[in-house]
Amino acid sequence: MPVLPIMIDCDPGVDDAIALLLALTSPELEVLGITTVAGNVAMKHIQRNARQICELAGRPDMKVFAGCPRPLMHPLQTAEEVHGVGGLAGMTLPEPTMPLQTQHGVDFLIETLETAAAPITLATLGPLTNVAIALIKAPHIATKIERLVLMGGSTTFGNITASAEFNIYVDPHAAHVVFTSGIPLTMLGLNVTHTVLSTPTRRDRLRACGDVGAIAAQMLDFYGAEEAEQMGLPGSPLHDPCVIAYLIQPDLFTGQAVQVDVEIASPLTLGRTVVDFYPTGEPNATVITHANADGFYDLLTQRLSQLGD
Amino acid sequence: MPVLPIMIDCDPGVDDAIALLLALTSPELEVLGITTVAGNVAMKHIQRNARQICELAGRPDMKVFAGCPRPLMHPLQTAEEVHGVGGLAGMTLPEPTMPLQTQHGVDFLIETLETAAAPITLATLGPLTNVAIALIKAPHIATKIERLVLMGGSTTFGNITASAEFNIYVDPHAAHVVFTSGIPLTMLGLNVTHTVLSTPTRRDRLRACGDVGAIAAQMLDFYGAEEAEQMGLPGSPLHDPCVIAYLIQPDLFTGQAVQVDVEIASPLTLGRTVVDFYPTGEPNATVITHANADGFYDLLTQRLSQLGD
Amino acid sequence: MPVLPIMIDCDPGVDDAIALLLALTSPELEVLGITTVAGNVAMKHIQRNARQICELAGRPDMKVFAGCPRPLMHPLQTAEEVHGVGGLAGMTLPEPTMPLQTQHGVDFLIETLETAAAPITLATLGPLTNVAIALIKAPHIATKIERLVLMGGSTTFGNITASAEFNIYVDPHAAHVVFTSGIPLTMLGLNVTHTVLSTPTRRDRLRACGDVGAIAAQMLDFYGAEEAEQMGLPGSPLHDPCVIAYLIQPDLFTGQAVQVDVEIASPLTLGRTVVDFYPTGEPNATVITHANADGFYDLLTQRLSQLGD
Amino acid sequence: MPVLPIMIDCDPGVDDAIALLLALTSPELEVLGITTVAGNVAMKHIQRNARQICELAGRPDMKVFAGCPRPLMHPLQTAEEVHGVGGLAGMTLPEPTMPLQTQHGVDFLIETLETAAAPITLATLGPLTNVAIALIKAPHIATKIERLVLMGGSTTFGNITASAEFNIYVDPHAAHVVFTSGIPLTMLGLNVTHTVLSTPTRRDRLRACGDVGAIAAQMLDFYGAEEAEQMGLPGSPLHDPCVIAYLIQPDLFTGQAVQVDVEIASPLTLGRTVVDFYPTGEPNATVITHANADGFYDLLTQRLSQLGD
Repeated sequence: MPVLPIMIDCDPGVDDAIALLLALTSPELEVLGITTVAGNVAMKHIQRNARQICELAGRPDMKVFAGCPRPLMHPLQTAEEVHGVGGLAGMTLPEPTMPLQTQHGVDFLIETLETAAAPITLATLGPLTNVAIALIKAPHIATKIERLVLMGGSTTFGNITASAEFNIYVDPHAAHVVFTSGIPLTMLGLNVTHTVLSTPTRRDRLRACGDVGAIAAQMLDFYGAEEAEQMGLPGSPLHDPCVIAYLIQPDLFTGQAVQVDVEIASPLTLGRTVVDFYPTGEPNATVITHANADGFYDLLTQRLSQLGD
Repeated sequence: MPVLPIMIDCDPGVDDAIALLLALTSPELEVLGITTVAGNVAMKHIQRNARQICELAGRPDMKVFAGCPRPLMHPLQTAEEVHGVGGLAGMTLPEPTMPLQTQHGVDFLIETLETAAAPITLATLGPLTNVAIALIKAPHIATKIERLVLMGGSTTFGNITASAEFNIYVDPHAAHVVFTSGIPLTMLGLNVTHTVLSTPTRRDRLRACGDVGAIAAQMLDFYGAEEAEQMGLPGSPLHDPCVIAYLIQPDLFTGQAVQVDVEIASPLTLGRTVVDFYPTGEPNATVITHANADGFYDLLTQRLSQLGD
Repeated sequence: MPVLPIMIDCDPGVDDAIALLLALTSPELEVLGITTVAGNVAMKHIQRNARQICELAGRPDMKVFAGCPRPLMHPLQTAEEVHGVGGLAGMTLPEPTMPLQTQHGVDFLIETLETAAAPITLATLGPLTNVAIALIKAPHIATKIERLVLMGGSTTFGNITASAEFNIYVDPHAAHVVFTSGIPLTMLGLNVTHTVLSTPTRRDRLRACGDVGAIAAQMLDFYGAEEAEQMGLPGSPLHDPCVIAYLIQPDLFTGQAVQVDVEIASPLTLGRTVVDFYPTGEPNATVITHANADGFYDLLTQRLSQLGD
Repeated sequence: MPVLPIMIDCDPGVDDAIALLLALTSPELEVLGITTVAGNVAMKHIQRNARQICELAGRPDMKVFAGCPRPLMHPLQTAEEVHGVGGLAGMTLPEPTMPLQTQHGVDFLIETLETAAAPITLATLGPLTNVAIALIKAPHIATKIERLVLMGGSTTFGNITASAEFNIYVDPHAAHVVFTSGIPLTMLGLNVTHTVLSTPTRRDRLRACGDVGAIAAQMLDFYGAEEAEQMGLPGSPLHDPCVIAYLIQPDLFTGQAVQVDVEIASPLTLGRTVVDFYPTGEPNATVITHANADGFYDLLTQRLSQLGD
């Protein structure tokens, strides 16, 4: 079985943390490096959280880079009410001993793509700032991106406004750059992640599967609880890990080729991913419309059970 | 049982025609007058179609008015591909003998409301141009509108663009005026009308119930067939009659108090009805989220069976 | 010498009042009626002020109509700081005895144009709401408008924002309707009215020319004084009377055929009249670029001197 | 006399070329490096042109960097009709022997600012893409920019549209980032550069002052001739060299502290620099309102006369 080389761009964040744990424990993936971007919380937390999670996964060798600490056009908007102060649900993990790489995340992306023998897959779990800045600085890298699989957007409702999902809303201009870049895109949005809920039962299975599973479960007990209650959901949507699960086991998901445009002109609908299911031209993205949630949690639990103890 | 006095503003249009037939055959409603507005086809057809349908319903006494022949800000966009040239699916109904009223539809609205003893319900089946112009010309009429029940918008997808429903898209500025007017609103959008499909079986029941039912069925054989096929639906959505059915038998529908804003700032999402199901302030509309489609077709068939032969 | 029949649409306001006095004392013009629109102050003041000025000009026979009390899309913004509470610089003129016409101003515009033997010139001194609503309600009247001469816009700076002039800013959507209507337009904007300043000397000449001149001068002592001081001008710009002077004595002005578009999409530049002096297509307006200010004040003083005593 | 260390960001372009010649021959300035950006023509020409001009100025030691080859959000729009194919008025200068630096222009900006002992002045002659990307990638550099003096924008009319000047229009989003960055700005826009015209007399003086002056004059014979003719100007505006002249001899210019906002929301006014001369808050820019054109051409001629022969 060939191993898929990927780069992960993320803003941990609880669900990013779970996604990183899943990626770092999955032999199907070779993580070439982790770039971080301001989003769920500020950069000073983000890059530290990423390193803490790598160490939690037993991967202090992983390269973690700090990327852009702000979006292209707007002030940074964070989501401490969802992820907790600091971004990891208030958990106090050990101070990381692995270093932050000195290279800027954007330049690691560019350099890795430029020097790669074959196109590489990007998994993005936060605002698309780093990828957009890389594309503006060095547009020629676009052809070296095999596919960009993102958590972001929605075919239905938003979560930060009635129209927009958080990752896209935080940097809609970056999303616009990416969605008009010609790079093959796979979009996992709220419409599907809102069907992948971390119910008490699923959290208990995670809790039971070892030390790391217990930490994951503890973070998920906090994560998004308020949002889930408002919407009457039996658990929080586990957004970002869906991207990694898709890369490991794509048959858990089904999707459709569509045209996606990102709204940047109007405050009311800012950051909406406008999905045209009947595009007249060439589709620019595959939007995931269905996930096997039980299969997803089986995969996650199985992988996390390999860690710890 | 009290009879509900209403005014109907419409742009017939096949589904408007069915809506008028339903209204004019229902003892629960007293139709005070019918104003017409450019929309599905041009005004010269619209006002004639309205009169033809009144005569088909045996109501040559009804007052029909021509309203605004153009939207507030944009050129008129019509939908002959859905309704046929002329707007009634190519049907050749007898030339109407009843006159078009000489008063402008906007002024009939204003005058009727100004002089009414009690607030009146408006049923709008087309672009909201007439109501908006009335509100700009004479804002004091707002308090004389008991409720405005409209076909328009969507909580999910559009039909004229990926974002927008036809009635709102044709005059988004008029819709903005109405949705910010403080008038109590009930919105029946695509999310619900796309569950009220004129399947072959339902059309056959209509066809069997008399002369007028047969004409209705014949129009519906043509109406929206292309759109239904593209979307893989077993029949065309019967949009406008839902408004009338809601006024006759509200228990066929369920809804939710929400905040609705109309997008007027961006070409990409122009005319989208942005529905916030978790509004922070006072809701400005009830959006219908569920219809009893079988109950609706039972009602429609029963009422049309009273006509003809 | 043929007399030019005109209709005046206005929102008095001090400079509207001077404009009305100039029009009503000039034999070159036949004022068919005066419609009023909310703008400088609210409608209840506007229509009363218009009647007071007619009586001051010895014309209690003039027909004055109330038009739209609000703009198309935005809440009304007024300018009491420029025109004083009530709109006439705090003057207490006698309560008018002439009636307000019962017909709506919009309908007077439509009816007069529809029934006119030849196209008629419109002079608009306020927001373009009434004309826009007339054009939406009855688009066929456009061909019966010989020319629309407006005070509004600017080729340089604004006065209500850095980008926009007050009349256009108050109802930019109405202005958009008018500027895209195909009606021949002559635009007198801030770029020219800011060269027609009511200096102390000019006001003193007015003051000396009779009772009405004295009242005019007194209003002008108050009018726009703050704005003039901020901008370091030796007197307030006398905007609206330029329109009337242009109709009486066009050789006081020079202009250029241009393309004018009205900004309605962006809050930053909302209501800006974007003037293209090198249009690629057919110009839609003549923009006045120069006024003979001394000639203007000679004309005004001469005409007002005929009144009073 | 202290020497002012500066970095120049440019897109040569004829007027950029003249600006570089002026900077490289002026002992008042120490040019730390030249970064280039796509604008007047494509990057492949821009960076080569910059090196050719350095060699023409006898400065093959200068460091020239390629920066961003595209704007943030829009496709690149170039101006070959003004600058000639290739960007230097069709001149065939010797192929440069000095190398293009391998570091990206954005990173040279960031690194130089990060490591500088004291804040540095930036002179920008093209679209602001490089500076904006640097600010997004590394916002902390803002405090190391002493002042940014830019050619761009206008307080009056545009040249690429009725509203916008070319440099800002090409990348309005980058301009927005810079104008909201808090960096002290001095803006030399069309309102002032259109008073600094390269008349035949002035070009002849340049032509007479040596080999390089002759080349400069020859480029200026071509440059902007069409635009000057359309506008009825006696010579082309010499935009970019005004920035360098301002840094050398600021007393040639007068300006005013203002608020400048960049329009990014509307297609009609896209890229307009909205200048508020009466800002309510803290001004964010000094806008130059007057230039001593004769003094400017004296300076330019005197400096170019030192080169060549």
